[in-house]
Amino acid sequence: MVIADIAVMPLVPAVSEEELYRQVDAAIDYIKNSGLKYEIGAMSTTVEGEYDEVFELIKKVHRIPFEVGSERVITVVRIDEKKTGLTIEDKLRHHKNRKSS
Amino acid sequence: MVIADIAVMPLVPAVSEEELYRQVDAAIDYIKNSGLKYEIGAMSTTVEGEYDEVFELIKKVHRIPFEVGSERVITVVRIDEKKTGLTIEDKLRHHKNRKSS
Amino acid sequence: MVIADIAVMPLVPAVSEEELYRQVDAAIDYIKNSGLKYEIGAMSTTVEGEYDEVFELIKKVHRIPFEVGSERVITVVRIDEKKTGLTIEDKLRHHKNRKSS
Amino acid sequence: MVIADIAVMPLVPAVSEEELYRQVDAAIDYIKNSGLKYEIGAMSTTVEGEYDEVFELIKKVHRIPFEVGSERVITVVRIDEKKTGLTIEDKLRHHKNRKSS
Repeated sequence: MVIADIAVMPLVPAVSEEELYRQVDAAIDYIKNSGLKYEIGAMSTTVEGEYDEVFELIKKVHRIPFEVGSERVITVVRIDEKKTGLTIEDKLRHHKNRKSS
Repeated sequence: MVIADIAVMPLVPAVSEEELYRQVDAAIDYIKNSGLKYEIGAMSTTVEGEYDEVFELIKKVHRIPFEVGSERVITVVRIDEKKTGLTIEDKLRHHKNRKSS
Repeated sequence: MVIADIAVMPLVPAVSEEELYRQVDAAIDYIKNSGLKYEIGAMSTTVEGEYDEVFELIKKVHRIPFEVGSERVITVVRIDEKKTGLTIEDKLRHHKNRKSS
Repeated sequence: MVIADIAVMPLVPAVSEEELYRQVDAAIDYIKNSGLKYEIGAMSTTVEGEYDEVFELIKKVHRIPFEVGSERVITVVRIDEKKTGLTIEDKLRHHKNRKSS
């Protein structure tokens, strides 16, 4: 299992914030319907899955805004992989449940 | 209000995963104790605050790993600002509560 | 010395690519005139300077698009710091001059 | 044509800076030998190619450090695509040759 954090940013044309959100929402919907585990954050969506399926998802998601009217898209992805496997749950359990020192 | 997403990555020396997590946890603790609103994610921590205080926080957080033994740190920050103000709640409410189409 | 890589992305309103470039160029001009050492890349601009001056620059640059008409800006920054100092020249010399094996 | 900017960060175990550079260099060598156009920067390497070949490259490059001893790797990728095509040359020509105003 590998974790990837995806932020899709449709740049042109974005006449209004509603238009921007509509295109980003289309990308998030695609992730929601992908079958992969996901967590929606304020700045990006984090997904978890096998290496091939995560890359397949990124390849698709980046292009969703073009399907709903965008002409220019920048996507920022951060991929986190551990040789022995890594899950969103592992990382959240570690960082969230720990008592702050 | 501005939103910033912060991922601190201590690179050297990181002999073990425990050592890596210890340094990242020190950075997250600093955010928790900052007084700013925050959301811990699997890949980063998102904070919300006034422009100056968010930058002051980023400046401090990036350097926390050096205080606990690191010699090389890369920090990735994404800043999201809207002229009329933006909160984590605004964005999460929008993206999470929407019915997927 | 610390290195930071800055990509300013004006999101709304961006009616055309010309408008997008105009806003990004204003941000790059600000960096060019800052006095800090910089390298312009296809996806971002890398700067080098003392910690305080690099942060001061990032704080200013992120807001330049608002001054030329933008209402929403996302900036992605990667900060690379080594306890004993790090320059763009150090990193480029290392990665570029090495013979590929 | 699409542009992607790739920064591979081997996290564990990285006992020394030499070890870190050795793993990053292995990733950069892979890009150099890929046949795709590339530009090495201080913070990342930018590549240009067809969508499928760029993704194939990212999938391979992220895993190179594992082959040379790493157990944990975070890779940050920024993909920039324009409906009508985009090259490194286009962007550099625009941003570099312009007279600063």
